[in-house]
Amino acid sequence: MEITYFNGKFIPKEEVKISPDDRGFLFADGIYEVIRWYEGFFYDMDSHLTRLKRSLRELRINWSDTDSFPSIANELVKLNNLLDKNAMVYLQVTRGAARRSHSFPSPDVTPTIYSYAWGFTPDFGSLQTGIKVMLKEDIRWSRCDIKSVALLPNTLSFQEACENGQKECIFVRNGLITEGSHSNIFFVMNGTLFTHPESNNILSGVTRKNILRIAQDAGISIREEALQENRIRLVQEAFISNTSSEVMPVIEIGGNTLGNGNPGPITKLIRERFENEIQASKG
Amino acid sequence: MEITYFNGKFIPKEEVKISPDDRGFLFADGIYEVIRWYEGFFYDMDSHLTRLKRSLRELRINWSDTDSFPSIANELVKLNNLLDKNAMVYLQVTRGAARRSHSFPSPDVTPTIYSYAWGFTPDFGSLQTGIKVMLKEDIRWSRCDIKSVALLPNTLSFQEACENGQKECIFVRNGLITEGSHSNIFFVMNGTLFTHPESNNILSGVTRKNILRIAQDAGISIREEALQENRIRLVQEAFISNTSSEVMPVIEIGGNTLGNGNPGPITKLIRERFENEIQASKG
Repeated sequence: MEITYFNGKFIPKEEVKISPDDRGFLFADGIYEVIRWYEGFFYDMDSHLTRLKRSLRELRINWSDTDSFPSIANELVKLNNLLDKNAMVYLQVTRGAARRSHSFPSPDVTPTIYSYAWGFTPDFGSLQTGIKVMLKEDIRWSRCDIKSVALLPNTLSFQEACENGQKECIFVRNGLITEGSHSNIFFVMNGTLFTHPESNNILSGVTRKNILRIAQDAGISIREEALQENRIRLVQEAFISNTSSEVMPVIEIGGNTLGNGNPGPITKLIRERFENEIQASKG
Repeated sequence: MEITYFNGKFIPKEEVKISPDDRGFLFADGIYEVIRWYEGFFYDMDSHLTRLKRSLRELRINWSDTDSFPSIANELVKLNNLLDKNAMVYLQVTRGAARRSHSFPSPDVTPTIYSYAWGFTPDFGSLQTGIKVMLKEDIRWSRCDIKSVALLPNTLSFQEACENGQKECIFVRNGLITEGSHSNIFFVMNGTLFTHPESNNILSGVTRKNILRIAQDAGISIREEALQENRIRLVQEAFISNTSSEVMPVIEIGGNTLGNGNPGPITKLIRERFENEIQASKG
């Protein structure tokens, strides 16, 4: 039986009852986090917790007990017998349930907290061969830096990619490549690693941040600078990053094959160093 | 006791149980409608039903029983003793509940249908005096023509207006005035009525459409053309429209007083004709 966390209790998923007045359901008025469990530890919980707090602050949702997230996540892993497995934990916090009105409830209501864990198997095939991704106009709002649940544009865009036989949809805004529907993207041109700088047009990925650190330690030259769509043909390598894929090689973007159509050497180097860190943490 | 409609049944609101897997809750993957009941009839149900079908089609949500909405709405009015009152009916349709994945569930799941009704008292004071509204950069996505529940930007913007003592937030995109957080907006300049044309940057309001028809019948010159923000000072009158406010005079926009600070004559004429139509329908 799947045990979830809901408003202070660990209960079977079937017993979770989201109110139809929940502002998450009515207005997408909430935020989320996804964190990975590596057979014994969470990957960079500190950064996830920091981002969680930032998201809540940006939306002015007052979850007084934000610091309990690590212990909730830990308990979910334990209760679902995932301690010695690869797993993920999802957390969603909404402003809470109140009679429908565009303005915030007054007085404040208690936020809704929902979290669950699941066993996770990486897509080893794609990590080996690399993936093809599509390019599409960024139809999202202008606050992509907030990890909100207003994900309709992301789901529509990702679905389009899937139906085209591609494994991610990469967005272009005003001619510049921003990020994927649920990933950040990196490019290699003449040995330099490029990725969109932190801004309101991308989510500041935890994996993104760690990749930049790893690349720097490896002596790779880095430019946090958006790539123009029309410079795609100058790109030798690319990869996307997120909590589940870590470093996922990209071999084709919007029909353009990159390099010789195989994961490139800098991509492989970064992926290897990323994996080594995980192994070292396992002790 | 409040009786709502949920997935085929009329049940007390307390018994409605939205699944935490519902894509409305997780992804804002759903649409809605709000329709007004005038002591005996729904205002332009045909247009609401047409728009509902369009929203579902745009998101590829397959609710086979869309045509049942009028009878659901009618039943809710009846069950909640609102037949001889002013009331509103809200309907939300989401893609349904499925294990979380950005791509659409495969195979399809059954959409979630939720609807409720409530007694409604118009804001007569504001209709008399007119309201003040703020101007703000449009932070929404680029498919505002879909009446989706991804309303987080709308709620954040409207809340900001409320905290500034204003009754609506009007959006500006690329220097052009689009619409409000939950209304369309009209301007009068030298006797001509201006409103943003139908496009992906505004919702095609049912009230908007009827106002254009009324204005045309009244011999008012109409231009469906976006107003540049920097031309606000040339505006003599303005009003917003939606299902609840109908024709709501605006007397100040972003700190600029319009005309003499009272609802203007063309605004009043259109409002009067709108009200006359309602009275005539009551027969």
